[in-house]
Amino acid sequence: MIRDLILKNRSYRRFDESVVIDESTLRELVDLARCSASGANRQGLKFILSWTPEKNASVFPCLRWAGYLKDWAGPAEGERPTGYIIVLGDTSVSKTFGVDHGIACQSMLLGAAEKGFGGCMFGSVRRDELRKRLGISEQYEILLVLALGKPVEQVVIDEVGADGDIKYWRDEQAVHHVPKRALDDLIL
Amino acid sequence: MIRDLILKNRSYRRFDESVVIDESTLRELVDLARCSASGANRQGLKFILSWTPEKNASVFPCLRWAGYLKDWAGPAEGERPTGYIIVLGDTSVSKTFGVDHGIACQSMLLGAAEKGFGGCMFGSVRRDELRKRLGISEQYEILLVLALGKPVEQVVIDEVGADGDIKYWRDEQAVHHVPKRALDDLIL
Repeated sequence: MIRDLILKNRSYRRFDESVVIDESTLRELVDLARCSASGANRQGLKFILSWTPEKNASVFPCLRWAGYLKDWAGPAEGERPTGYIIVLGDTSVSKTFGVDHGIACQSMLLGAAEKGFGGCMFGSVRRDELRKRLGISEQYEILLVLALGKPVEQVVIDEVGADGDIKYWRDEQAVHHVPKRALDDLIL
Repeated sequence: MIRDLILKNRSYRRFDESVVIDESTLRELVDLARCSASGANRQGLKFILSWTPEKNASVFPCLRWAGYLKDWAGPAEGERPTGYIIVLGDTSVSKTFGVDHGIACQSMLLGAAEKGFGGCMFGSVRRDELRKRLGISEQYEILLVLALGKPVEQVVIDEVGADGDIKYWRDEQAVHHVPKRALDDLIL
């Protein structure tokens, strides 16, 4: 059931770094993106894959981790992502990419969840730094970065409380809580 | 397998109008969107559902159908969508919505495909007209419209040819062809 997979597919930020995600798995995920919808079928997205410790170490410092967790700078060594998919917009194809990268990343994360992996989409990226480190030409806009690995954290969905606060938080057992609005509050 | 569902989930534009999609199904789809990722967990999306013939008739003329099919103005009576989900951005929550609506629509379309329905995301919408017809307040930005129904058309994925043309087209048997770029052309 797609519902089970969507519920399994939480945003994970801590991983078992001993379980690597290999190139062929990353390519399978990109193929899911390839077979997903694209505005006017333009297919302007391009992808850079990272799965080696060296390249992963280049990407990691370019991501801004969990904005609401002020006392957490990101996963410690041993709990870092073992792969990344950098989603680019090819400006030689299109100047705008609509929501193609959102559609693509949702397909890829659902594919990862099915395989027992998981991850997180990053829109908050040190783009200039990442461009320099990976030698990404100006032809490509850096749209999103998908961080991937074998999740080791528990993520639970809570109801948004009376105060309306939607900030995720971590409890004393390091369980990650994500308040979600009620269905009836979303339908006008 | 999520891959099978992603392949089944083509953009469909002709439907069996005798098979209706009901309110509870549309609500289940929105619940899939609700449980999907949202940038900084802000959850600024809101949804208007349409499933009655009257409301559907209001929404239908506001959509621009299949830009590349110049001699086709959209589905004829009997082949029109039987439901719509209008995806709004609530500007009282956030001024920008990132790719939240792309993620949400991909989740909803995958849910629809699993149930034997299908549809198409519309970014090309007569927004002023739709706002007027449905009485949508200025608080909400109209982001995307999802048209839904029981597909009656065959959609096939082709390889992009040597000329690089990505425009979809319809053959003499009314099969809808969508050229997709090769995987190796997407990975840098």
